[in-house]
Amino acid sequence: MQRYFLNQAYQPTVEISGEPHHHMSRVMRMTVGDQVFLVFNDQVAIKAIIRGIDNDKVTLEEVEKEQLQRELPISITIASGFPKGEKLELIIQKGTELGACHFLAFPGESSVAKWDAKKQLKKQQRLNKIAQEAAEQSHRQVLPKVRFISEKELIASFTEYDAVLIAYEESAKQGEQAQLVQTLQQLTTSQKLLVVFGPEGGLTPNEIEKFQLAGGKLCGLGPRILRTETAPFYLLSAASFYYELQH
Amino acid sequence: MQRYFLNQAYQPTVEISGEPHHHMSRVMRMTVGDQVFLVFNDQVAIKAIIRGIDNDKVTLEEVEKEQLQRELPISITIASGFPKGEKLELIIQKGTELGACHFLAFPGESSVAKWDAKKQLKKQQRLNKIAQEAAEQSHRQVLPKVRFISEKELIASFTEYDAVLIAYEESAKQGEQAQLVQTLQQLTTSQKLLVVFGPEGGLTPNEIEKFQLAGGKLCGLGPRILRTETAPFYLLSAASFYYELQH
Repeated sequence: MQRYFLNQAYQPTVEISGEPHHHMSRVMRMTVGDQVFLVFNDQVAIKAIIRGIDNDKVTLEEVEKEQLQRELPISITIASGFPKGEKLELIIQKGTELGACHFLAFPGESSVAKWDAKKQLKKQQRLNKIAQEAAEQSHRQVLPKVRFISEKELIASFTEYDAVLIAYEESAKQGEQAQLVQTLQQLTTSQKLLVVFGPEGGLTPNEIEKFQLAGGKLCGLGPRILRTETAPFYLLSAASFYYELQH
Repeated sequence: MQRYFLNQAYQPTVEISGEPHHHMSRVMRMTVGDQVFLVFNDQVAIKAIIRGIDNDKVTLEEVEKEQLQRELPISITIASGFPKGEKLELIIQKGTELGACHFLAFPGESSVAKWDAKKQLKKQQRLNKIAQEAAEQSHRQVLPKVRFISEKELIASFTEYDAVLIAYEESAKQGEQAQLVQTLQQLTTSQKLLVVFGPEGGLTPNEIEKFQLAGGKLCGLGPRILRTETAPFYLLSAASFYYELQH
């Protein structure tokens, strides 16, 4: 069943216009009596039935709330140093399926990709569209957002989180394996975790120092060396396994 | 440091010809005194020093064994119903980084991709090359192999494994969450786990029945619906987290 993310708070009867109206009436050619899932921006998801369609709006009524909790108990933000090519697309598509709530992209010191403000804006729009499609497909109850920020802004934002982890290749090489488990154990429902990943070239010693000074903790993700786009999949899958299957 | 997988058992002094010889002498232009990692087909990995290079062989001597254990304690085989496009490439590249030991590809009943024997052989070669590159990059101590098989062969092989899981979307939808944890708890070092994933269209009820009759157990991978190529990443990351970080 089709899934729509609405930029408004939950209400049992709702009138929809704009893009979702167009999609329901023109693309899907839905009619009165058809059912869809609606996800509101306060994480309420309902099954709703179409009660009326006209040229500029669709009126829907709640049938029932979606029962299954589909969101991780903690909110995970993935910050990626600009990687090359289409890797950010992959991180955001798969990361959305795997439960991330926010994505930040920042120019890492070893990033090869250089995107000017105009290109960043265009890419950000494209990436948000990818997040939306993946959120629909994976039945999310939160629509993840993608934002481009500077490294300075990233570091300044550390204080907004309950924990900040730095995925560091050298930690993996040295066999560091306690930090991720400890952090997941310490976080409680609705707390916020930020995890920072470097670009292909990794994080520089300078970046590591700045991130640690700002409160970030170095963290290994198992003994194999993961590519920049694979590491976030590991982190998110591990968090899901820990919170959603083991507990 | 460059990493080479050798199709022979461990020995402290080794003469290498063929492809690795070509790569060391011609591509990397290595000379006497240079060091590389050698991985033998009995999972022994050593740091070795080049003692001699001539036109058809390189002679190397062990410096030390690689200390860090990089392989999962259990051997995981990922079986994927033929997916569309380049998804198998992605599964094998990332699945190798994440620790899988074998990959099987089979024509699922809902597979859209149809590959004849000739195309399968070519694709199998290409996929083994991708596995090798990913194994080098992620510092594996096992070179994963990719093989195309029929569904009948897949089912017949179930008896070779200590546990067989069937990743089933409906299990996720119904909130099944105990099977994966139970299975990981039960398996002990060196045991073998097979996990079967459907193509984009999912496994058919007919396939599910046959797999269950042959001893496969249905298994959910968290409450979000994962694409066919994302589900193996979840499984492998969860196994790594469980065996390598938690225990």
